[in-house]
Amino acid sequence: MSVTAAKGFLAAGVSAGIKKGGRPDLSLLVSARPCAAAGVFTPHRFRAAPVDICAARLAATGGRARAVIATSGCANAMTGAAGRRDALRISAAVERTFGFPAAQVLVASTGAIGRRLPVDKIVRAVPAAARVLGCGPAAGLAAARGIMTTDKRPKQAVARFRDGAAGFTVGGMAKGVGMVSPRMATVLVFLTTDAELGSGPLRAALRAAVGPTLNSMTVDGQMSTNDTAIIMANGLAASRPLSGPGLARFGSALREVCASLARQLIADGEGASRLIEVAVRGARNDGEASRAARAVADSMLVKTAFYGAQANWGRIAQAIGACPGIRFSPRGVRVAVAGVPAIRAGVVLPPTPRVLAALRRPLVRVDISLGGGRGRAKVLTCDLTEGYVRENAGYLT
Amino acid sequence: MSVTAAKGFLAAGVSAGIKKGGRPDLSLLVSARPCAAAGVFTPHRFRAAPVDICAARLAATGGRARAVIATSGCANAMTGAAGRRDALRISAAVERTFGFPAAQVLVASTGAIGRRLPVDKIVRAVPAAARVLGCGPAAGLAAARGIMTTDKRPKQAVARFRDGAAGFTVGGMAKGVGMVSPRMATVLVFLTTDAELGSGPLRAALRAAVGPTLNSMTVDGQMSTNDTAIIMANGLAASRPLSGPGLARFGSALREVCASLARQLIADGEGASRLIEVAVRGARNDGEASRAARAVADSMLVKTAFYGAQANWGRIAQAIGACPGIRFSPRGVRVAVAGVPAIRAGVVLPPTPRVLAALRRPLVRVDISLGGGRGRAKVLTCDLTEGYVRENAGYLT
Repeated sequence: MSVTAAKGFLAAGVSAGIKKGGRPDLSLLVSARPCAAAGVFTPHRFRAAPVDICAARLAATGGRARAVIATSGCANAMTGAAGRRDALRISAAVERTFGFPAAQVLVASTGAIGRRLPVDKIVRAVPAAARVLGCGPAAGLAAARGIMTTDKRPKQAVARFRDGAAGFTVGGMAKGVGMVSPRMATVLVFLTTDAELGSGPLRAALRAAVGPTLNSMTVDGQMSTNDTAIIMANGLAASRPLSGPGLARFGSALREVCASLARQLIADGEGASRLIEVAVRGARNDGEASRAARAVADSMLVKTAFYGAQANWGRIAQAIGACPGIRFSPRGVRVAVAGVPAIRAGVVLPPTPRVLAALRRPLVRVDISLGGGRGRAKVLTCDLTEGYVRENAGYLT
Repeated sequence: MSVTAAKGFLAAGVSAGIKKGGRPDLSLLVSARPCAAAGVFTPHRFRAAPVDICAARLAATGGRARAVIATSGCANAMTGAAGRRDALRISAAVERTFGFPAAQVLVASTGAIGRRLPVDKIVRAVPAAARVLGCGPAAGLAAARGIMTTDKRPKQAVARFRDGAAGFTVGGMAKGVGMVSPRMATVLVFLTTDAELGSGPLRAALRAAVGPTLNSMTVDGQMSTNDTAIIMANGLAASRPLSGPGLARFGSALREVCASLARQLIADGEGASRLIEVAVRGARNDGEASRAARAVADSMLVKTAFYGAQANWGRIAQAIGACPGIRFSPRGVRVAVAGVPAIRAGVVLPPTPRVLAALRRPLVRVDISLGGGRGRAKVLTCDLTEGYVRENAGYLT
C-alpha cells in the first residue's frame, strides 16, 4: 500500500516504451478532488526541465495540484529548450485526458541525463494509463514500479492516524539508488494524504519531514539534476483543516513515511550490501555535525571497509580529520561502532569479538562525538561494493 | 634511477618483518654530507607521530637533515604516546648506527592506521639495512620498493641539468595508491638533489613544485594521516649556492620530477585502469577552478563512467552543477572530452565515433570552461573499478 492508501487517490504504472523490454516506465497519480500541494526540489545548477516546470506551477497556483505524471529511463535533463517542450507536451496529454487545468499537472522524469524523451510514445501511453487507474494496492505498486530505474525493489510506505471519527492516512512511493545525496530535496518521492491542510502548513510539514530523512542520506555523494519530492493533500478524510495537535500528528506521520522511504532507498542503493548509520554529536553546531557525518558517510574507504566487514577504525578518523569546515580537538573525539568503543583520546582501539560480529549485520551504527558542543546530525548511507562499480560502468549500455 | 641518482646519496630497502612474506618494508636514505632539507606535510587533524617528529625536527634545525628512515605496512597513526615513542626508538637506531645528530634523522611510516609498529624488529633491521646501502640504481629501486603498500609498481623519477661544468640532478621516489587526495603535501615522497641550496630557497622550490603536481591529484578524495614530502640537497654538484636562472632551472627540474611521480602514483591508483586529467578554466579564481576540478575528479559516477568507457557527459555536468562554493552561469559552461565538444549551452551533445574511441585510451582529458573568469586548475585522477573495491574491502585481511 502506498500512494493509493489515502482516500481519493488513483494510480497507474504502464510501459510507454522509454525503457527496453516492456518494463513499466510511466506512472500516473491522480486525485479525485483538487489538492493542496507542495514540493521540494534539487538546488542543482543544471536542474532538469520537469523540475523547473513543477516549481513554477506550484508557485503560480499557490500550491494546488490534481495529478503527477512521472517517467523513468530518461531524465530529460540538459536537453535545452527542446527538453522543456517535451515535458510540456507530456503534461498537455494529461490535461487533455482528464480535463484538469494545465497548471495543476506536475511532471517528473528520472534516468540518463542528456537524452531526449520519446514524447510521441509517452503521449500515446497517457490514455492507456488512464484506463488502468486504480485505487487499490495493486495500482499503487504498479505506479511505484513505473518510476524505478536501477532500483531492484519498489519503495512504498504508509502511516495512518485514527482517533475515533478523526484520522488520516499518509502514503508515499520513491525511487533512486544512484546519484543519491540530495540537498533540500531528493530523488523522486511522491506522497499523498487525505488529511485536510492548507498549502502553507503542507509545505512546512514536507520540509520538516524531508530534512532529517530524505535529505540525510547518501549513496554516492552525488546530487541529481532531477531530485523532486511532491506531496498532495486532498482533505477527503476530514471536514476541516488540521491544526494544533492534529497538525503535529500529521507531521510525525509524514516524517515516518519519509524515514521509511529513505531506509528503503539506501538499502536498495546501487550494489549495497549493508546500511551504515553515521550519528555525530558534540559538534559546534548542527551544520558542522552534518558536514562531519557526510564526510564519513561519503568516504569510499569507510564504505569499502564496511563492505568487507573490516574493523578499520582508522578510516573513520581519516574522514573526520580531513573534513574541512569543522572545528574540534582531535584528542576529544570519541567513536563507537555498534556501541563498542573504537577510538578514544586519539587512539584506535582493537576490535572486540562483539564488534566483529556486529560488522556482518545488515545495519551498522557509527557514533561519533566531536566533544565540543550541542550540534548533532545523522546520515544514512550504504557500503560500496563491486556491484556499484559494475552498475555504473555499464549504465548507458 | 631515483633517489640515488644525485651524487652522494645512498639508499637501501630491506625486509624488517612488518609486512608478511618477507616483502621489503624498511627503506633508508642517507646523504654522505649534511644537507639542507625541507618538507611539506599533511594538514590532517589526526596527523601521525612520525609526521609530527619530521616537522618539529626540520623546524628545530632550520632545515637540516642527514637521513630518512621510512617503513611500510603500518602507518603508526592514532597510536597515541606509545606510537610517538616507537617512532623515536626507530630514529634513535639510525642515530646509533650512523652517528648522526638525532635532530637530523627524519622518520616516515605508511600503511594501516591504528596499529603499533613492531619496533624491536625494525631496530634490529637498521644495521642490516646500513650494511646493504648502495649508491647505484639497484639500491634506489630497493628503497622505492621498501615504501610500497598496495602499490603494484615502484615510483621513481630523475631530472638532470647540465651546462658545461655546472649542473645538478634531482631524483625522487614515491608511494601511495589509496587514500590519495593530498592537501599541502602528499603520500610519501622523498626527493634528493646534489644542487647547493639554502633551506629557505629549497623549501620555496618544494612548495612550488608540489602545488600543481602532487597536490593536484586524487585517487579517492581521501587525505592521509601520513602525507609527507621531503627533499634533501647536499650540494655535492656545485661549489656555491644556486641563484637567479640556476634556481629557476632547479625549480623546473624539481617540478618535472614531482609531475612524473604524480602521474605514476595515479596510474598505479588502487584498481585504476586509466588516467583522467580534468582541466578547468573560466572560473572566477583558481580556488573555484580547483574546487570544480576536484568535484569532477572525485565523482564516483564520473570515475565509473570512464572505467566503462561511457560517453555519459551528464555525469560531468552533474558533478559541476552540484559543487558548492563556485559561481557560474549554467548556460555558459562548455565541456570537451578528448578535445571533442560534449556539453554546450546547457545541452549534452551526442558522442562522435572519435570520442568513443578516445574513451578507451589510457589517458582521457576533460576540458571544462565555466565561462566566467581567469581562474584555472588541473587535477589528475583515475577511474573507479571493482579492483578498488576489492582492494579496500580486504585491506586489513
